[in-house]
Amino acid sequence: MHILVTNDDGVNAPGLLALTQAMQPLGKVSVLAPDRNWSASGHVKTLHRPLRVTEARLADGYPALATDGAPSDCVALAVLGILTEPVDLVVSGINPGANVGHDMTYSGTVTAAMEGAICGLPSLAFSLDTGETGSTLYFYDTAAAIAAQVVAMVQKNGLPQNVLLNVNVPNLPMSEIKGSLVTRLGLRIYRDVLVSREDPRGKPYYWIGGDAPTGVPEEGTDIGALAGNFVSICPVQLDFTAHRSLEALRAWDWHIAR
Amino acid sequence: MHILVTNDDGVNAPGLLALTQAMQPLGKVSVLAPDRNWSASGHVKTLHRPLRVTEARLADGYPALATDGAPSDCVALAVLGILTEPVDLVVSGINPGANVGHDMTYSGTVTAAMEGAICGLPSLAFSLDTGETGSTLYFYDTAAAIAAQVVAMVQKNGLPQNVLLNVNVPNLPMSEIKGSLVTRLGLRIYRDVLVSREDPRGKPYYWIGGDAPTGVPEEGTDIGALAGNFVSICPVQLDFTAHRSLEALRAWDWHIAR
Repeated sequence: MHILVTNDDGVNAPGLLALTQAMQPLGKVSVLAPDRNWSASGHVKTLHRPLRVTEARLADGYPALATDGAPSDCVALAVLGILTEPVDLVVSGINPGANVGHDMTYSGTVTAAMEGAICGLPSLAFSLDTGETGSTLYFYDTAAAIAAQVVAMVQKNGLPQNVLLNVNVPNLPMSEIKGSLVTRLGLRIYRDVLVSREDPRGKPYYWIGGDAPTGVPEEGTDIGALAGNFVSICPVQLDFTAHRSLEALRAWDWHIAR
Repeated sequence: MHILVTNDDGVNAPGLLALTQAMQPLGKVSVLAPDRNWSASGHVKTLHRPLRVTEARLADGYPALATDGAPSDCVALAVLGILTEPVDLVVSGINPGANVGHDMTYSGTVTAAMEGAICGLPSLAFSLDTGETGSTLYFYDTAAAIAAQVVAMVQKNGLPQNVLLNVNVPNLPMSEIKGSLVTRLGLRIYRDVLVSREDPRGKPYYWIGGDAPTGVPEEGTDIGALAGNFVSICPVQLDFTAHRSLEALRAWDWHIAR
């Protein structure tokens, strides 16, 4: 079992190190990660410029490859043959900060797993719900220990085609984790505001600012699980069709006038 | 009805002009688009740097705003208050090149509409299936005329919360369009290959190359509709949960060991 480890925070991120170490008992581990932080980068595939791949080392000395491409590019490069052996499974993370609800559409951590799933590989994304407490105490060791267990479950059971697992872990010592729940995506509440400023030459510029998003901690959702100190394990599909809306839409008067 | 027009190809793209002109009979039209091409950019939200907004004009003299942000940023800026009046509806396009199947996860055109839907607005993405014939004959006028009709339908019927319409139009004169179909997402077949080269200093670099993706023209799908010269109207949801996999996953032996 050849496991590719990547992330969107860059090859020097502590979450990548923790995830790499956690995967080592489970198979041969290759690391190919961006050379810089791509947070909130979305699902980028770099077709318009060439990519560089350089040798790097993690903080514990483990060999890694770094690229100037995006998280999805790391997966594409690995699958298309930068690594000498075929990849069997993709893990992405551990992201500092939860990826829940509509975060799916922005998250580089998750899109790396999406790229893995598009390539037909079992793929998982891991995030640590570090919240906004301002705490710098990040329990990557908890998330890494859970990642090892969840990946072992996937190795045993497999995953459906075109479905990835998006795993979020409460930022707590392992002894305070209540357990795990299979969840659906919850509702994020974004609290963005436009911050308008003037540069030293009197010209306006704008920040998308405001408080970090909150969530509705509804039971059965990823946000609800985290609120109760449970690990959230959410299956995410690549078929974005709103199947439940098809019938209503077909009832519209769809006559295209020429 | 205040309609925001944006795209991912930039403010000077002919598809943006065609879409802007098509929207004018339907309401007050504001244009806010990227100042450069963001194709295959994914769902980017720019939080780590400030954004500039400058005045521009379309080729027909219509006033527009351009930003150095991504397509989703255009929607966020507009909704958060760069425009003096609240936005009622978001349209994105017209993209040269179909956005079907898993393209959803990469497409800047679609993610602009996703951002609109996340903001609670009826949102639509329009793409022209220009294919790979190498033809430079792009029937934006067909897609624009269809966009006007589809948006009018949405104005009349509304859209479900958290659902956007992804519309793909065959690249044909209007007289050759067979009609429209409400579709689900089809299966793209990506044919990426890794192209390895050496720079003038003998160092390797890599292109993600290969032929453009093809698709399986299955009946009921967006790809099938286009193959039959029908307009594809596909509802896309923001809930990416693989609901059909929940039960099977819950049957796994989810005991997290401490």
